[in-house]
Amino acid sequence: MTFARVAIVGLGLLGGSIGLAIAENLPDTQTTGFDADPDVRRRAAERGLVGTVCDTIAEAVADADLVILCVPVGAMGAAAQAIAPHLKPGALVSDTGSSKASVQAALAQALPGQPIIPAHPVAGTERSGPDAGFATLFQNRWCIVTPPADADPALVEALSEFWRTLGAKIEVMDAEHHDLVLAITSHLPHLIAYTIVGTASDLEQVTRSEVIKYSAGGFRDFTRIAASDPTMWRDVFLSNREAVLEMLQRFSEDLTALQRAIRWGDGDALYDLFTRTRAIRRSIIEQGQDVASPDFGREGLKE
Amino acid sequence: MTFARVAIVGLGLLGGSIGLAIAENLPDTQTTGFDADPDVRRRAAERGLVGTVCDTIAEAVADADLVILCVPVGAMGAAAQAIAPHLKPGALVSDTGSSKASVQAALAQALPGQPIIPAHPVAGTERSGPDAGFATLFQNRWCIVTPPADADPALVEALSEFWRTLGAKIEVMDAEHHDLVLAITSHLPHLIAYTIVGTASDLEQVTRSEVIKYSAGGFRDFTRIAASDPTMWRDVFLSNREAVLEMLQRFSEDLTALQRAIRWGDGDALYDLFTRTRAIRRSIIEQGQDVASPDFGREGLKE
Repeated sequence: MTFARVAIVGLGLLGGSIGLAIAENLPDTQTTGFDADPDVRRRAAERGLVGTVCDTIAEAVADADLVILCVPVGAMGAAAQAIAPHLKPGALVSDTGSSKASVQAALAQALPGQPIIPAHPVAGTERSGPDAGFATLFQNRWCIVTPPADADPALVEALSEFWRTLGAKIEVMDAEHHDLVLAITSHLPHLIAYTIVGTASDLEQVTRSEVIKYSAGGFRDFTRIAASDPTMWRDVFLSNREAVLEMLQRFSEDLTALQRAIRWGDGDALYDLFTRTRAIRRSIIEQGQDVASPDFGREGLKE
Repeated sequence: MTFARVAIVGLGLLGGSIGLAIAENLPDTQTTGFDADPDVRRRAAERGLVGTVCDTIAEAVADADLVILCVPVGAMGAAAQAIAPHLKPGALVSDTGSSKASVQAALAQALPGQPIIPAHPVAGTERSGPDAGFATLFQNRWCIVTPPADADPALVEALSEFWRTLGAKIEVMDAEHHDLVLAITSHLPHLIAYTIVGTASDLEQVTRSEVIKYSAGGFRDFTRIAASDPTMWRDVFLSNREAVLEMLQRFSEDLTALQRAIRWGDGDALYDLFTRTRAIRRSIIEQGQDVASPDFGREGLKE
């Protein structure tokens, strides 16, 4: 089973990248798209993010076999309600949201009787909007599919195959486990990056200009993900609240232990941790989830 | 005033990069080098990190006009004691340590009567050892020079000019202010990165393999600096303890405020912070301290 017509709702980084990746990898698939912002629709049409940019959400989804909602997770419920009256019977509804239990609940409520299989491609950059997408965004990245318990296995496989064709690797798990995994691998890192960038910009003893000048000492690595889309991330933290707070609690305990080690001059405890953490990066590089070039290879990229 | 003979003690990432940068930018300057580890000395000679790799620290520094200590900050005192009996009168002693007040005190104690001007090139990668250095490491990076109150201004200028010739931009400040500035721009980011990588590897609910697989969601950005040299960083935290603990306290307060905003569903507070933090990254890029390419340009670097 394949999807002859795919509708993309929300034409930002993720929606745009899906459209471009379909054009490159599934040239026979027809794509339509809609975005609530007319400026985004115009720019999406200029870049050719989808075959047809529609002026109403109804038009965009009317003939689709697969509808992918690529809007902030807080807007998923409203988007689902907006498409509900216009869907073909049996059309599969999926999404790209970064939290899954809340999205699954919102879609199920708005779309009774419609097949729903949420998914989350773990890919992105700090850029957002219709100019940010590119066709290879999903290459060698994982896409986590979180089917409800009663999902049709054939549809799960069809959606998985769709993502594989765009370059992704597939993992299937339930929404609750997804939310825990992403809380530690994505949501907590963003929360911490936003916090430290905020802390640094609010100091009295150190000027903002000094923070910027000497950011190559480590700080600048955090600023990349702290430049991500504010609306998207506000919604992620509100929708995955419990898992994020749990991981934050663990992190805070570990940070307190390290604070104590520094205060008491316990060099061995520091050294032990600093040695252990190297192994994780090695594995990430071995598994193709990051580049091995020192400094992320930035030195070769001077602009 | 220029330095005709430069001795480099410690031939890792920093020492090796200085040697290579001298060869490229100051071809008439003679360089000698020493490392306590014979394997490092052998590899340094193979790579030609300095003109002459010496088998004793005495030989390396005997004729030098400028000696640069490139060892972990906890080893600065011992290195200074080791060179003390062998220095030419008037030879300038400097270093590359990441904390400055404690280094300045250690050098002053070990080298009475010798001119001492500590410095800190804010540059590096997560790599360490004699294979990590490269000649352009200091290009467009800041080097902070922290002269003691009684330093000879002509020597301060000579050292500054030396660093400018290697590609760096110079800022002069006192050691205490340096330590505060670096606590927020470098030491706290490393501490937080080490902590979250440790937290992620200790969870029961999420396996280490899952953390690695889905690290592209943000976590992998932290693993780069958490792969830095453990000895160097243990020493940094122990030697800049007060400033690090102060910045950590500020960070923890801000994190608690954000935790509360999530718990109470205060989306506006989250959105406000997430919007403010974008401006800092823009400034860092405008000032050439990071690349503008999305995702640090990693996508162009698949290995």
